[in-house]
Amino acid sequence: MSEALAILWNGEPVSAIPALSRGLHYGDGVFRTLLQQRGTVIAAELQLAKLLADAAAIGIAPPPIAQLQADLAAASRFGDATVKLLLVRAGERRGYRPQTDAADRLLVVHPSPAAAGGRAIDGIRAIRSPVTLAAQPLLAGIKHLNRLEQVLASRGWPEGIDEALLGDDRGQPVCATRANLFWVRDGVLHTPALDRCGVAGVTRARVLALAAAAGIDCRIGSQPWSALLAADEAFLSGSLIGIWPLRAIDGHCYEAQRPVTQHLQSLLAHPTDLVPSNTR
Amino acid sequence: MSEALAILWNGEPVSAIPALSRGLHYGDGVFRTLLQQRGTVIAAELQLAKLLADAAAIGIAPPPIAQLQADLAAASRFGDATVKLLLVRAGERRGYRPQTDAADRLLVVHPSPAAAGGRAIDGIRAIRSPVTLAAQPLLAGIKHLNRLEQVLASRGWPEGIDEALLGDDRGQPVCATRANLFWVRDGVLHTPALDRCGVAGVTRARVLALAAAAGIDCRIGSQPWSALLAADEAFLSGSLIGIWPLRAIDGHCYEAQRPVTQHLQSLLAHPTDLVPSNTR
Repeated sequence: MSEALAILWNGEPVSAIPALSRGLHYGDGVFRTLLQQRGTVIAAELQLAKLLADAAAIGIAPPPIAQLQADLAAASRFGDATVKLLLVRAGERRGYRPQTDAADRLLVVHPSPAAAGGRAIDGIRAIRSPVTLAAQPLLAGIKHLNRLEQVLASRGWPEGIDEALLGDDRGQPVCATRANLFWVRDGVLHTPALDRCGVAGVTRARVLALAAAAGIDCRIGSQPWSALLAADEAFLSGSLIGIWPLRAIDGHCYEAQRPVTQHLQSLLAHPTDLVPSNTR
Repeated sequence: MSEALAILWNGEPVSAIPALSRGLHYGDGVFRTLLQQRGTVIAAELQLAKLLADAAAIGIAPPPIAQLQADLAAASRFGDATVKLLLVRAGERRGYRPQTDAADRLLVVHPSPAAAGGRAIDGIRAIRSPVTLAAQPLLAGIKHLNRLEQVLASRGWPEGIDEALLGDDRGQPVCATRANLFWVRDGVLHTPALDRCGVAGVTRARVLALAAAAGIDCRIGSQPWSALLAADEAFLSGSLIGIWPLRAIDGHCYEAQRPVTQHLQSLLAHPTDLVPSNTR
């Protein structure tokens, strides 16, 4: 059943978590899914900083960073792996009201996307999801455990489709189910603002920082779907996937030439460009 | 730590649930919180029907009703109790995409609100929450496990406040954190529509049915906050609380005379009118 290589709850090996955890009952927690290469998590500092910032945003106090580093150290012996780290608000009493701002930690080590099988890609095909993201500024940008929209948007993809793009209630593209969205027009890099919905990914931040450092003009802001479709290039970013060029969205195809995307791929130097078979 | 009297996972006593459950990782499930009186769950048929409808709405196939009835039978020996029943999508593989529409069942029996302590009430005081509910028609009305908005809205109530009222992005009141909202104006019973956000509670449905049967004119529709504040009476409904008259919202007080509310309270004949101390 489970494909996990290791599971630690507050540093102890487990196969189960408390049945009254607020993570299960309310989704009262945050998480990151990290790529580990030869025992080292890519961009670990940024990832932990984002995890702690997301926790603070919903009122969960950061655990000592040494505990999170100990979790990552326990994962490192698995070499190439996918590492999922959750912070869940502690407390087992019934009722929405938090009893504490303390956190339980869950670490799950999965096989790496490459080891789990997959196919090499030269860009992926996406559909536009019928699911529209709700606007909730209080939770926008945060990778929390309330992910039903992503579950609903992950169902029913046609054969050959690797992602679904989600828009907001204003008819503007926001992200993919597990990736951020970028496009390039006339040499300018665009990515949607994430102040009303969506998750502000660490790899998105790295791409923006690399692009700025490379002298590429970057614009963060919401635009209509037509802007995405009129782009010269488009791609997705994520901590597991790195950069995935978009070959097509529904019936619309992008040019095979992608100079800016390739430039950013080379700068990001992500170790895999596989579409993992197990996370479709 | 835990106050639970019994916990069953798929009918078996447990204290923990699988660490890879989609309930924890995505909130991929639905639930009901039920009041059990002398071994019998109030409105059990309606409650199970709503649980199964909510499951179906997010693509979870209903388990055999006999299994749910067996869960309730296991709870019945605890007499007066709070019974929480969850249906969580099965499957332990990583990734948003569901691998199955089968469900795991979690039953948690807690002490009854009365046994857990509380104080008798003649109406409660509520505040208007700063949290605005996001509009997501795909999930509106469903009692699912993505409850961070309710968690955020349950924090920081001043002393003497027992509930917080939540509005939508159009500036209209919708519900309380764990109850539905009604008001009465000129003898007409009003309650917000729940097609964009909020949970369509079973006790709300029972109140509407009883009111209609009693010849009370009922109107379901969204209205501005001013309509709620201009009402002659206002109350909350919930499966644990029955009907809670609203004495005040922020600084606004309602009349102590509540003929329609009292009529509906007598028709609903809910066994408790305590504010439980453990679920505030």
